[in-house]
Amino acid sequence: MAEEQDRFQKQLDFILEIDKEKNILRQTHLTGHGRREDDADHAWHLAIMVWILKEYASQEIDIVRTILMVLVHDIVEIDAGDTYAYDAEGKKTELARETRAADRIFGLLPEDQGKQLRALWEEFDAYETPEARFAHVMDNFQPMLLNNSNGGGDWKEHGVSLSQVMKRNEKTGTGSEKIWSYMQEILQENIGKGSLKP
Amino acid sequence: MAEEQDRFQKQLDFILEIDKEKNILRQTHLTGHGRREDDADHAWHLAIMVWILKEYASQEIDIVRTILMVLVHDIVEIDAGDTYAYDAEGKKTELARETRAADRIFGLLPEDQGKQLRALWEEFDAYETPEARFAHVMDNFQPMLLNNSNGGGDWKEHGVSLSQVMKRNEKTGTGSEKIWSYMQEILQENIGKGSLKP
Repeated sequence: MAEEQDRFQKQLDFILEIDKEKNILRQTHLTGHGRREDDADHAWHLAIMVWILKEYASQEIDIVRTILMVLVHDIVEIDAGDTYAYDAEGKKTELARETRAADRIFGLLPEDQGKQLRALWEEFDAYETPEARFAHVMDNFQPMLLNNSNGGGDWKEHGVSLSQVMKRNEKTGTGSEKIWSYMQEILQENIGKGSLKP
Repeated sequence: MAEEQDRFQKQLDFILEIDKEKNILRQTHLTGHGRREDDADHAWHLAIMVWILKEYASQEIDIVRTILMVLVHDIVEIDAGDTYAYDAEGKKTELARETRAADRIFGLLPEDQGKQLRALWEEFDAYETPEARFAHVMDNFQPMLLNNSNGGGDWKEHGVSLSQVMKRNEKTGTGSEKIWSYMQEILQENIGKGSLKP
């Protein structure tokens, strides 16, 4: 009984702790030239996108694993903060910061559940399984869709160039050829409009 | 090819449209006496909670269906707005407003996908299947957890009474006895503190 109560308390501690993810702001702005998106908003959007767009995955994916992966992929940012995709300095220390965060935050859960969610986060980072590849497509495609709907303003604000976007997306085509091909159309349009540096 | 392109475009239209859910604010405040929570933040939190707390469901539930149900359960509020749980006047017109919203928003998707998500939304509303019952437990438990972490301030602000909370939760125990029993402890504590009217 005490053990069961301890397990329930750990689950509640984790649930309350991750509420903080809603305070982490990204560089992406919401459609309609809205406010900056928060990490939980972003993860919610990716999870629905996984279900809507699953037919375009290059290899068959397990839907629960992929949805759960995108739901938790940014939880470490509660401690480590959001590192902008094109922040070269921040990227150097990102892994160390995020690993410490994963130890603490997934460590709040009962051991079995903490291990499962941490493994999913590591799998996302390792970028090798079909699920991780497709989750990364969603993670790169979603901010591009929002940014494109706002005329590419986020790229303009940060002076982002095509080569930076291409480098970040060097493996996106392995997760979904169809979506990557559409993303390249968006890139060309934004070069034409001057919001992305050629 | 044109048909495939049409399908993809409909999926993208829906994905961009639901971005607006991030602008719908709820009455619940984030932990740490934070800002008001938005609908997408809330749905993200419920989806992770479904996975963490699934062992307490009164009947076995299908995890993908339940997670997808909580992810989309508030999408209609893009048109219909958020109706506070204890807003008696708003509750009278809620179903009509939400049904029109469902026609429009799920109607953006390719027919097969629109039907599936709309059916999930109707299933949630009908409150009959094990998945819908558990989804409602999450939907009622999550704001109570946040509110309790803030000393019950949301109840205090709206002058909410125990009988209102009990009425809203009259079927919560059918989704999870364990969680409903814990929720009743929270209610008693908040009556003791004077944040909830007896």
